[in-house]
Formats: sequence, C-alpha cells, structure tokens
Amino acid sequence: MEKIDLAKLEQKVASIWDDVLTNSPFIHEIMSGKATKALYAIYMIETYHYTKHNAKNQALVAVMGNDLPGNYQSYCFHHAHEEAGHELMALSDIRSIGFDGDAVLASKPLPATETLIAYLYWISATGNPVQRLGYSFWAENVYGYIDPVLKAIQSTLNLTPQNMKFFVAHSVIDDKHADEVNEMLEMCCKTQDDVDAVTAVMENSLVLTARILDDVWKEYQLFQSGESDRYAFLRTNA
Amino acid sequence: MEKIDLAKLEQKVASIWDDVLTNSPFIHEIMSGKATKALYAIYMIETYHYTKHNAKNQALVAVMGNDLPGNYQSYCFHHAHEEAGHELMALSDIRSIGFDGDAVLASKPLPATETLIAYLYWISATGNPVQRLGYSFWAENVYGYIDPVLKAIQSTLNLTPQNMKFFVAHSVIDDKHADEVNEMLEMCCKTQDDVDAVTAVMENSLVLTARILDDVWKEYQLFQSGESDRYAFLRTNA
Amino acid sequence: MEKIDLAKLEQKVASIWDDVLTNSPFIHEIMSGKATKALYAIYMIETYHYTKHNAKNQALVAVMGNDLPGNYQSYCFHHAHEEAGHELMALSDIRSIGFDGDAVLASKPLPATETLIAYLYWISATGNPVQRLGYSFWAENVYGYIDPVLKAIQSTLNLTPQNMKFFVAHSVIDDKHADEVNEMLEMCCKTQDDVDAVTAVMENSLVLTARILDDVWKEYQLFQSGESDRYAFLRTNA
Amino acid sequence: MEKIDLAKLEQKVASIWDDVLTNSPFIHEIMSGKATKALYAIYMIETYHYTKHNAKNQALVAVMGNDLPGNYQSYCFHHAHEEAGHELMALSDIRSIGFDGDAVLASKPLPATETLIAYLYWISATGNPVQRLGYSFWAENVYGYIDPVLKAIQSTLNLTPQNMKFFVAHSVIDDKHADEVNEMLEMCCKTQDDVDAVTAVMENSLVLTARILDDVWKEYQLFQSGESDRYAFLRTNA
Repeated sequence: MEKIDLAKLEQKVASIWDDVLTNSPFIHEIMSGKATKALYAIYMIETYHYTKHNAKNQALVAVMGNDLPGNYQSYCFHHAHEEAGHELMALSDIRSIGFDGDAVLASKPLPATETLIAYLYWISATGNPVQRLGYSFWAENVYGYIDPVLKAIQSTLNLTPQNMKFFVAHSVIDDKHADEVNEMLEMCCKTQDDVDAVTAVMENSLVLTARILDDVWKEYQLFQSGESDRYAFLRTNA
Repeated sequence: MEKIDLAKLEQKVASIWDDVLTNSPFIHEIMSGKATKALYAIYMIETYHYTKHNAKNQALVAVMGNDLPGNYQSYCFHHAHEEAGHELMALSDIRSIGFDGDAVLASKPLPATETLIAYLYWISATGNPVQRLGYSFWAENVYGYIDPVLKAIQSTLNLTPQNMKFFVAHSVIDDKHADEVNEMLEMCCKTQDDVDAVTAVMENSLVLTARILDDVWKEYQLFQSGESDRYAFLRTNA
Repeated sequence: MEKIDLAKLEQKVASIWDDVLTNSPFIHEIMSGKATKALYAIYMIETYHYTKHNAKNQALVAVMGNDLPGNYQSYCFHHAHEEAGHELMALSDIRSIGFDGDAVLASKPLPATETLIAYLYWISATGNPVQRLGYSFWAENVYGYIDPVLKAIQSTLNLTPQNMKFFVAHSVIDDKHADEVNEMLEMCCKTQDDVDAVTAVMENSLVLTARILDDVWKEYQLFQSGESDRYAFLRTNA
Repeated sequence: MEKIDLAKLEQKVASIWDDVLTNSPFIHEIMSGKATKALYAIYMIETYHYTKHNAKNQALVAVMGNDLPGNYQSYCFHHAHEEAGHELMALSDIRSIGFDGDAVLASKPLPATETLIAYLYWISATGNPVQRLGYSFWAENVYGYIDPVLKAIQSTLNLTPQNMKFFVAHSVIDDKHADEVNEMLEMCCKTQDDVDAVTAVMENSLVLTARILDDVWKEYQLFQSGESDRYAFLRTNA
C-alpha cells in the first residue's frame, strides 16, 4: 500500500525538468548554439565541486544509519565506492579544452553549489536514511532530460568524447545505477514517511541543482562583462 | 589592511534586504494589510524550525574548530547558551493566537527551511570557522529592516506583545548580540580569506532565508485554495 | 627513508600478542580445555558489537578525509563494502550453538568494547587519515596468533565450521585483505608522521582489543558465580 | 523509583578511587615524596590534552541531542562555556615551573589520553544524552580524593598556587559545578536506562582516566632511564 510509485515519482521529476529546461537562461543560451568554452568550463567547475562530495555523502548514509533495511548499508558503501573519484573526470574535461586544472582545484564552489553540497550531507546524516535515494533517483537518470543540452554543447564547441568524459561515462554507468536505485527504493520504502522523505529530497535536490545553473549563468555574465575576476583563468587557455 | 569593513558589509545586507522587501509577494501581502493569522502562523512555524537549530550550529563551530582566535571559542558556547530554547518563544506565539502547538511540534520544515538549516550546519562544521559570523551579522541586526513588516502584522491582526514574544525578545537581545558580533568580526577577521568567507556566508544565508518567505507564500496559497492539507490544523483555532 | 617498515611493525604486533597470549586469563582458560559455550558466546557477543561498527568507521575515514593519497579513498569505501554485515556471522554463530539471538541484539557492549568502538571512530574521523590502517594491519592478519585459541575452542566445544562462520570466513577473506592493507601502507606512508600515526593506532587498538578479553573474562566469572544477571539468557539454551 | 541514588553512585566512585589510590605506582611515587618537576609536567601535559576537549564534548551533547529534558540543553552550552579555555591553566602551570610551553603545544597525547578523549566524544555524540553527566559526576568532585596527592606534589616540589592554577581554580569552581551536576542528574534521570547509562559512563571514564596515570608512569620511567626522547624538552628548564 505504501509501496512507492516510481512512475509517479518520475512524473514529478519530469515536471521539474520541464520547468528548468523551459525557464533557465543558461539552458537557452546553450540551445541557441551560443555556448562557449568558458560557459562549459564554469558549469564543469561546479560539477567538479559537488561531485567531489557525492561518494562521501553517499557513504555517510550508512555510517550514520543504524539497522538499515536489507542490503541498504551494503548498497551505500558499494555505490560510494563506484562514485569515488568521478570529480576527476570533470577536472580532466576542463583541462582537455585548454584550461588550467590547478586553478580549478584552487577555486571555491559558487553559493548554489555550496548549498547543494550542504543539503546532501544534511539529508544523508540526519532524518530518514532512505531519503538520499530521492537524490539518486533523478541524478542517476538524468540523460533523458539533458541529452539535447549536452548534444548542443558538443556540437557548438566541436567537442570530442575525450572532452566530455564525465557525461559519457555517466550516461553508461547510470543505466545500471538507475536500476539499482529503483530496486533499493522498492525494498526500502515501507511506510508513508519513507515515500514522503524520498519525494521531498528528490524535489529539493533537483531544485537546488537547477539553482546551480542560475548561479553559473549569473557568474558567466559577470565574466563576460569583465565585472568579476573570479574566473580570470578562463580568459587564457593553458 | 585585511580588516573587515563592517559598513561595507552592512551595505551589502541592506541591498539584499531592499531586493527582498521590494520583490517578495509574502511581504507585499503583509504590507497591504492582508496578513491573516494563518499566514503569520505558517511563517512562525518555519521560524520555530530553523531557530531550534541555531544554538546547536552556533556551538558546533567551537566543537569542530581547533585553535580558534582569541575568545572566539568561548563566544560560540556563550552565544549558543543565550540562543538555546528560543524556538519555544515562536511556539508560544503560535499557541497564543489559538493554534495547536502539538501540530507544530509534529510538523516538518518546508524545503527552503530545511535547506537553510542544512547550510548553517555545513558552514559551521566545515570551512573557515569564522564564517558563521556572517550569518550572525545580519541575523542579529534584522529589526531595522523588518520592523515595518512586523508592525503591519501586529496592526492587521491586532496582536499584543504576548503574541509576538519571539520578535519582541529578539529586538531587545539582538542589540547586545549585534555589538558582540561586530567585536568578534573585528577580532577574528585577519586575512582576506576570513573576510571573503564571512561575506559569502552573510550573502548566502540571507538569500536562503528570503527563500523561506517564498516557500511560506507558496504554501499559504495552497492552504488558502484548499489544494494542500499540510496546514489543515490552521483551519481550526484550538 | 620514511617508508614504513612492515616487518618491524609486524614484530611489534607479535610482541603485543605474545604478552596477551601469555598473560590473559581468558586465553589460559581456553587453552586449558575449559572453554564453555557461555564463555565462547560472551566473547562472540562482544565481537558482534564491535564488528557492527567496523565497516562504518572504515568508510568514515574517506568521508572525513580530504585529498587522500592515490586510491586510498576508493579503498576505504571498497573495504567498508566488504566488511558490511559481518557482525551477522558472529550473531549466527551464537545462535548456532543454541543461544537467543534476540537477546544478543538487545544487549549492550561491555565497557572495554565500547571503548574500542569509540577509539576506532575517533581515529577514523580525526587526525592522520592514514592511521586507521594501523588497526587493519593487525586485525586482518590475526589468525597466525589466535589459531591455537580457536582450535582449542573448537575442540573443547565440539564445534563445526557452521558454529564458527565468523572466524572461518575471516581467515579466508583476511589473507586478501592483509595484502591490500600492506599495499595501502606502502602507498600512503610518506612521512614520519604517517608512520608514527599508523604505529600508534596499531598498538593502541590491539591493546584495547586485548582489554575486551579481560572484560569478557571478568563478566564470565560474574556469570559463573551467579553474581551478575547480565547474561542470564546464556543460562538456557534456546 | 528510577530516581538516581547519588549516594550509591558516590560510593561506586569512592570504591574506584580507593582502588586507584592504593594500586597506582604513579600515586605511590608522589605520596612517597619522590615527585619531580618532570613527573608533574608529564601529568599536566596529559591534563592539558584532555582538558582541551572537555568544553567541546560537553557542548556536543546538546548539539547532537534532540528534545533534551528541561534545561539540559541550556546547561550543556553553559557548562561548555565555563570550561572553555581551561587547558590554558594547565599550560600556564607547566610553563610556570620552567618548561617550554611550545613543546607542550607540539606534543601528542599518550595512548591512554587519546582513548579517554575518544571515549568522551563517543558517549557525548551517541547513546543516551544524559550519560555524560556520569563523567561530570566524578570529575567535578575530584578533590576529596586527590587532595592528599596534590598536597604531596606541592610540598615535595615547593610549588606555589601560581604553579598549580589548574587545580586551585578547579577546586573552587567545581563545588558549584558539582551541585549543578547533581541537580541535572536528579532532573534528567527518569528511567532505569538513564541511571544505567550514567553509571556506566561514570565507571568507564574514571577507569580510563586512571589508565592515564599508568601511561604517565610508564613514560616517566622511559624518560628517567633515557630510553625515550618523547619528553626530551623536560630535560632542560626553559
């Protein structure tokens, strides 16, 4: 009865993505063929920053949670292991298009990125331990929504798969991961509170991720106009 | 040289508040004399939720931080002690206008409130230990900005100081606290990184707080239209 | 120069074990053929309790550590995954000799066990992130030392491998793990501080584990004399 | 009925102290008038190390605990505030008898000290939030037991109160604190589990503290014999 309705959850994901893809000026810029290497790089820098924490907050669920259902503890550690180091693909992609990787390592995340990171640790360390699956639910199944955006970037910037390793790798891995997430959701969601917690985290983590796009866009404009030196290192290719 | 410029910091606060007070539909509703007890209650429920964590995340700064400058460790514990239990004033205010306090205790924070809570723990537990002062800087000095809003609520709803204990108490306490925060900022901010970290947390925590107003407004409309039963207990006075 | 000398580290382990095996009254009882099912069970209950935390504190190293060397982050999550759920083997062993597993689940660890658990979280969450390898170093390579003790228990109590799954499984798994630990130690120990931290944790975690044997022995005597009802459930076979 | 019996708890404290004072070679050395400045210093270095964490783990109880009874949250932050910085008195005492304070700051705690620190964080962060009062119960009421030991040190080494600020200050403060702890225990202990948890932490934290005396004694012998250079800086007065 309280079993989670994955189709319904997917509809909510789709509805939020629809809103994002329709209203995000960052997405519009890309879809209009106006992406630049700097825009792609700023986005990948933020991707680097939050991805660096994903294996950690994934493992944290099982570090903090007691008596997790079935093999959920094992899943969390296994999935953390699989996600470990993926930020290095984002870093490699940025380097591959000619930018200074050390400057990326020295950079700080934008406020929206810091907020997503904070939120994912919070919902991993406290509350219903099942709820982080709400993040994985959409994050491991993102390509149906953003594929046109990635294709537009690739085409506009003439990128090869070597410049987009982060997305290429994930589009492959995530199919398997999405199946595992669905299986875990079916196994772990036993009460209405489980379903509500998963749904809340799905919605909020997706909304907070969309805000990163807004922050990237805002910073990109400051970069373009010369008002901000935050990304000065993107003015010269390495 | 790297000394923090408190006047400049205050200007940034003022500029964000200006934006919030100008653009928030929640604020507009109140300033137009259309506040209802339910709207005030929904806002105070969220205030209850995040206030409950403020003493905790304040203390966390000194639990996690090593070799903090001067009496900053002592300040953090002292301030945590002074903030402890303040959420009970918010709860009392909600009860005082006829709503069911137990329903408040059983309620969950809205997504924007959960996000602020998460962010404040994150910036308290990690990063530059000085940075949480950026939150205190505006939060302990909020009345110059929101006083007209509080007056409008009071007047529209015919509230007595007994119905607004949370704000009455804080408007008094916070003068002292604001002085202490300024003193701590002068003492702790010794590098550009200190100043940047304080500024970033000031801006982001204020923006995330403003988003609570948006969430409250959205939920209030769902409440008014009957689309959501989240606050069903606000339909009947206790 | 600062490379860790694994042979020297092993000598220190051997010397501590020598002391423990020579002086522990718990070990003497077993080696004299006087082990009882209750004595074995009390020991396995404590094993259950601390094992329950080993995957967690292993993962915690990589959750808390930033910029860990090489594939050490990945190793921590992988090893946590491999250790997850091993406490269930200890529980199964206790059940298999006729005792009430639910009573084990409801039991609390003895003070020495609680202390080891506390210590392992502490050295995993703080200090040199490499240091937990000092625990793994001896813990994954324990059978050379305790094999005669296990054989004595098995023989005295007529146990089958089904009653000793925890030890049988680990004696197999741990060979592989010990190799991995050695490899990690060679890779991660780059400074004298790394070597010192690993050595300190090796020594202290082994000493704290030996104290569990003392606590088990003390409780066993209280159990035998009837002075304590802590393990009343071991008086009746399920 | 489940009210805590403070007299009975005190009897248990007395019995553990009796054992420690009777059997500790460290205590014997001092009571035989053979204390040296180096012995006092080594002990005070360990005191410095664990005291540095006491305010932190005290506050942690209220950071981690939800819905603590009565004013227990407030008490934790208040007491943390009062304990903050007390390690500096220990440091000052060491300096006052001619030793190098910077070497103390650079030193690492002995294994037994690290273990006590780890244990206090663990019982503060997890389990029954009331249980840390079991540590305060004996720690704030220690002078009846150790006064003869302090007097012997003072007399043997011709120390003035300026050389023993840590103990002089605490002997005054702790009377007030002990009353507050008793009051909190009466207020917070409502179930048998509360009483058991407090008792367990009282016993174990006192035993772990006594082990510091043993570690100090062992290191002192290595220092005297020249086998260890850990405290080389105690060979020359500053």
